Formats: sequence, structure tokens, C-alpha cells
Amino acid sequence: MAVITLLTDFGTDDEYVGIMKGVILSINPRASIVDITHHVEPQNIEQACYIVESSSKYFPEGTVHVCVVDPGVGSERSILALKMNNHFFLAPDNGILSLLVEKGRVDSIVSVTNSDYFLDSVSQTFHGRDIFAPVAAHIASGVEIKHFGEDVDKEKILKLNIKKPLISNTGRISGEIVYVDHFGNLITNIDSVLLNKIKGKRWDKTFEIQIGERKIKGLSNSYKSVEEKKPLAIIGSRGYLEISVNCGSAYEYFSAEKGAVIAVTIN
Amino acid sequence: MAVITLLTDFGTDDEYVGIMKGVILSINPRASIVDITHHVEPQNIEQACYIVESSSKYFPEGTVHVCVVDPGVGSERSILALKMNNHFFLAPDNGILSLLVEKGRVDSIVSVTNSDYFLDSVSQTFHGRDIFAPVAAHIASGVEIKHFGEDVDKEKILKLNIKKPLISNTGRISGEIVYVDHFGNLITNIDSVLLNKIKGKRWDKTFEIQIGERKIKGLSNSYKSVEEKKPLAIIGSRGYLEISVNCGSAYEYFSAEKGAVIAVTIN
Amino acid sequence: MAVITLLTDFGTDDEYVGIMKGVILSINPRASIVDITHHVEPQNIEQACYIVESSSKYFPEGTVHVCVVDPGVGSERSILALKMNNHFFLAPDNGILSLLVEKGRVDSIVSVTNSDYFLDSVSQTFHGRDIFAPVAAHIASGVEIKHFGEDVDKEKILKLNIKKPLISNTGRISGEIVYVDHFGNLITNIDSVLLNKIKGKRWDKTFEIQIGERKIKGLSNSYKSVEEKKPLAIIGSRGYLEISVNCGSAYEYFSAEKGAVIAVTIN
Repeated sequence: MAVITLLTDFGTDDEYVGIMKGVILSINPRASIVDITHHVEPQNIEQACYIVESSSKYFPEGTVHVCVVDPGVGSERSILALKMNNHFFLAPDNGILSLLVEKGRVDSIVSVTNSDYFLDSVSQTFHGRDIFAPVAAHIASGVEIKHFGEDVDKEKILKLNIKKPLISNTGRISGEIVYVDHFGNLITNIDSVLLNKIKGKRWDKTFEIQIGERKIKGLSNSYKSVEEKKPLAIIGSRGYLEISVNCGSAYEYFSAEKGAVIAVTIN
Repeated sequence: MAVITLLTDFGTDDEYVGIMKGVILSINPRASIVDITHHVEPQNIEQACYIVESSSKYFPEGTVHVCVVDPGVGSERSILALKMNNHFFLAPDNGILSLLVEKGRVDSIVSVTNSDYFLDSVSQTFHGRDIFAPVAAHIASGVEIKHFGEDVDKEKILKLNIKKPLISNTGRISGEIVYVDHFGNLITNIDSVLLNKIKGKRWDKTFEIQIGERKIKGLSNSYKSVEEKKPLAIIGSRGYLEISVNCGSAYEYFSAEKGAVIAVTIN
Repeated sequence: MAVITLLTDFGTDDEYVGIMKGVILSINPRASIVDITHHVEPQNIEQACYIVESSSKYFPEGTVHVCVVDPGVGSERSILALKMNNHFFLAPDNGILSLLVEKGRVDSIVSVTNSDYFLDSVSQTFHGRDIFAPVAAHIASGVEIKHFGEDVDKEKILKLNIKKPLISNTGRISGEIVYVDHFGNLITNIDSVLLNKIKGKRWDKTFEIQIGERKIKGLSNSYKSVEEKKPLAIIGSRGYLEISVNCGSAYEYFSAEKGAVIAVTIN
């Protein structure tokens, strides 16, 4: 029983996601369909890019990951089917798969053009229903991706220009907030590898995290390590530095938005 | 493995939808349950009516479509089980099935009264749990709908008075916005059949779509056919004329709400 | 095919719930996963406590109910696995299981400590993914809960101090609103058993329900028993007294919030 995950910006107020599931089950009645989220901000490719990278690894081998954040639907943009670590990914060629491809080893990529695997009639506005859903169902049924179209060179697929944190000569990391989650946690683009780099072997020293005019001293091991409603810094579940508030929202506490600068030094 | 779809106005903040699934799986552990949406506006029967018509056809034969937008719960309104094109529909007799019945060929309709198929104790406020869910599970298990109650004449079920667009003598279509989706697309009640009617054989002419004081020239083939943040008219995925904004929201662009008049002429 | 239910305060904007499902399906591909809701208010343990009690009984025997409203994640709080009526419950020891334990007969409770059943790497912020999901999947696969850790005395688990309604000498019930649902129904903590108690055998008398300065006479049998937009009192689907408005929102009608006092007398 193959798993198919869905990641879209469709929201859940309309029938669009339900229809995709109907198309999938019409072709592959045994597919087990999992919603990652349908609340990516409309057309926010970068947000989808982070999510597909951080979530896909928790699924079983053979899973088909369908990502439809697709402002270019109906234009000349192509649709990619990618195989990697025995997972399959289906997404528009608009950068959604950037982080994944950057961090891992791709087995093969094709441009999905074989309309034998599409719905009979393909609209100009809803390829999620007409192309992504049926192709995903066929992959989950065991159709190899080479049947969907021509090979694509890994170097030629569109890459997002995702901002990386910088390290100055003095060992100061300058990153930013890339995402604010449901709890108001501020997720940065600074990962633990980078933090270890500036720490070196100065075990007696602690990190100092600066956000706006405020500073947080040290990394916490749990939310509860500070009093309720107090801020802390922690390595979050995505493996990146996060700013949180115990039993509260760091988003409200700091009035900090996506894009705000986060600096880390050793003191 | 039969599919059961759920379309309600229950929202997803409460446990109501989860409970319906528990009841279904208690009776039919192999049912594959798909949410269409639970965010129909409370008591908005017309919205549910459009959604059930536009979504059900994408599901496999044998699917049981459960529609619980039911302001009359606990009153004398009856519950209908309907068979049509090898799909099953379960809904209050309040007009939700209007468009479906108008457009298709009904095999049979019964009034659901046989409490052998209900939960042991039926509340006055939650028939979704006590009647719809268990009956749907039994249909998915193969119980024929004639076992649930007496036949109902197709002509006697409640029809919604859904406004149709008008064509004037001069060939001007006057329709309206019936739905605003998650992306801010303005979905009208003007379908492509009607548009073709006023076009006739004047291939050199183009449509002119009027919304408030503004006009859009011609139908686009994709969102990308205009610049970002610019408006366009397109045949949407439901098969109706839609007003959209490329990478933006037509709802915000036009400040246009449900019910606003849309006129189409040939120029 | 075992059922696993998920009840969290994670929301559905992030990938967190999807990831839990990926972990579950990696261990137990045949699990049937049902969302109860992910929109418990962040850290609102009492709300989760009511929901788990009112929803779990509608699921088949063998169901594993996973409740992750867990402000203490990463601290010393323990995680409980509980067996009761052939259902399994997995929750932090923070009171979520209070009502359930109070009302039913517990078979066994253990403290979940055996990391053989956890993900290889356990984070400090996302035990939903690293502990709850894999342990639930193993329970659904038939692993007995004694394998997860030591027995815990039922009396020693954390109980919430849930406010009970009071009855005065004169037979006046004084309760409160404990929840406002999606429709704006005001759900109280006064159940039908308590109402019957003050009614006694005075069959000719009716209840009078007071909310703020306003009064409602008698209990209705259905929403439709009053005119549209008029208020009523009814025994709701949870078995508690609810204040509703026919085709409207009692929340808006009364401007009444959670915690507001509801008094019931016989007149």
C-alpha cells in the first residue's frame, strides 16, 4: 500500500484537495493519502521548498510526494518527476525541489509530458487534478518515471536563490527568520552545523543570540528551561535555530516577522 | 475498499468530523474516507450544492458522498439516499442535491427512515454522527438503499432556486459571482456552453467581460498570459467563467463579492 | 487494520501533523489514521481533556488515541500509555486523560520510557514525531503497553481541577460555559443527569436557563423548535446543556464567552 503525500497552497475551504484525492483513488484505490499541509501561502514556493525537504524523510520508502504550489500553471513551465533515496517527488519546475536536490543524491529526473497518464481533458488552471494526481497514482502503482517523459539534467532544473547565513571574520553569524510556525516559533536559516563551527572548542563560552535590540543568552534544552512567557533559543525539530517563548508566542513577544535578521556570536 | 466522502459545514476546530469517521470505521473498517471540505459557510446549502456537483464526478464508482449541511437537523425534514451513475449520495432533503439531480439521471431515491441502520441512540442535534455516518458505512459495505426506507419521487425532493444567467435579445449575458475561492478567484454561474451560444460563428470577435465599472477583453488560456497582478477572465476548473488575477486575488483587486453582477458581450 | 486518532494543538499550517503520519506509516503501513482536531488552542489541556472523552467512545475497539497537547515537552513530565475498554490512549501526564479516568475503569497505565520504540534521535521540542507517533504505531501493531515502561498507579497521574456545577439548597444549578463550538453553540458543564436531579417529579414545571441578564424557558427538542435567529436551550451531542440560536450563533447573540455563568432553575 503506497503512500502519497500532498503539499499545496490550495487551502481547505474549497473542494480542490478532495478532488485530487478522488482522482488518485480512481486510479489506485489502495493509495494511502497524507496531507502535509494545504496552507502554504498562495504562490510561496520558498515555504514549500523548506517543508518538502524537512518532511519527506519521515515517510516510508516508495512514498510519492506531490507538491503543487504552482503559480505558473498553464504556462510553459514543465512538471518534474524525480526519484531520490527511493522516494518520488512530483512538482512544477519552479524551485520547490531546490533544497532537496542540493542536499541529496538524485537518481533520475524526467519532464512529465506523456499525456497517456493524464486525465482525458487537461484544464489550464488545475493541473493538480488533471496531471499531478493521476501521475502520482500511477507512480504509486509502480509505473517507472521514465515512462512519463524525457530525462532532465539535474543542473538544468530551476533553483531557488535561498539566502544562506553569513559568518564574518570575527565569527559572527548573520542569518534570518525564514518561517513563523503555528505556535509563533521563529525558525531561522541557521543550522546546528554552522553553530558548531563558530563555537569551535571554546566549551566555556556560550552563544548570544540577537534579535532586534534584544539578546538571548545560551541555547536551551527544552521550552520549560525558562519561566512561562519568557523567551529562549533552541535547536528546533527541523534542525535549525529557533526562537521560542515558553507557553507563549515568540512572534508576538518580539513582534518579529519573516526576514528579520538574527545574529549569533560567542561570548 | 469503498470510498466515503464527507462535505459539511462543521469546521475542523471541533471533534465532530473525527467522530463521524469513528462511527464509519466501527461499522466498515475498510472504508477509505475523504474530506471534500468542512468549511462550507454554516447553513449555506447553495454552496454545498455547487461543491457536491463539481467534485463527485472525480471519484470512483461506488463512492458514497455524504453531505451534512443541515440547518433542519432534528425537525421533520427527511434524509435522502440517492443512487446515480453508480455513485451514492446521502443528504438532508433541503436542496443540496438540486444541481446533481437537474444535470443527471437518477436511478433511485429513498427517504432514510429505517433506524436499524442508525446508532442506538439518535440525538436531536447531530444526525451526522447518529444517522449519516452509520448509513454511509452500511452503503459502503454493500447494503442496497432500498433497505433504508420508502421510494421518493424525484420530482418531490426539494429544489434550490439557483439563479441562472440571462441572455438579452442583443446577446448580452447577465450572470453573477456565485463563489469566491481560496485564491480570490471569482467564480461565476456562466458556463462555457452559454458563452459559445453568444459567440456563434463570429470568430473574429472577442468577449468583453464587465465587472462593476471595469472591463476585461477576451478569455485567457492561463493565468500567466497577463502580467503579474493583472486581471484576466478564464474558464476555470469547474467549467465556469472565472475572473482571476495572475499571482494575486481578484477578490481584492475588484472588491467584488458573491452576488455581484457579471455581464458578457461580444465586441 | 487498526485505527489511530490524533488530537493536537499543532494547527494544520505547518508540516508537523503530516510528519507524525509519515512516522506512523513507516512502522505500521496498514494503520488508518483519523484526525480528531489539530485546532485545540495552544497548550489548552482542559479543552483536549473534554474532546478525548467525548470522541473516543465512537471509535472501534483497539483504537489508539494519541493526544499531544504538551506544553511540557522536553521537561521531566512523563508520557502515559493507558488501556481502558479495549481502547489505548497515549498522552503527556498533564491531565488530558482526567475525565476519561474519572468516568471509566482503567485496565493498566504505564510510563513510556523504553526508547527501543522511539525514533533513533529524540528532539527536545517534538515528541509527537519522535515518541508519540512511533509508540502509537507499535501499539496498533499489537505491542502490549507493558513493554513501554513501568506501571503507574492510577491515583498518581495528574488530574485537572475541572470545575463542576453546583446545586444550591433551593435547587438552583450554577454551571458555566466550557466551550464554544464552530457554530457558536455555548456548551456548558451541566449534564442531563444533573438536570433530572433538580427536576425530580415536578413534570408540570419547566427549566429556566439564565445567561447574563437573559432567560430561556424550557428545553427544546431541536434547533427548528424556535424561529430563525432565536435562542434556545438543548441537550447537545456531548450530553451537556447547550445554548444555541436557530440558524445563528449563540456566541454572537449573547456575547458570552467561555467561563460565563449559566444558572438553571425549575419554575
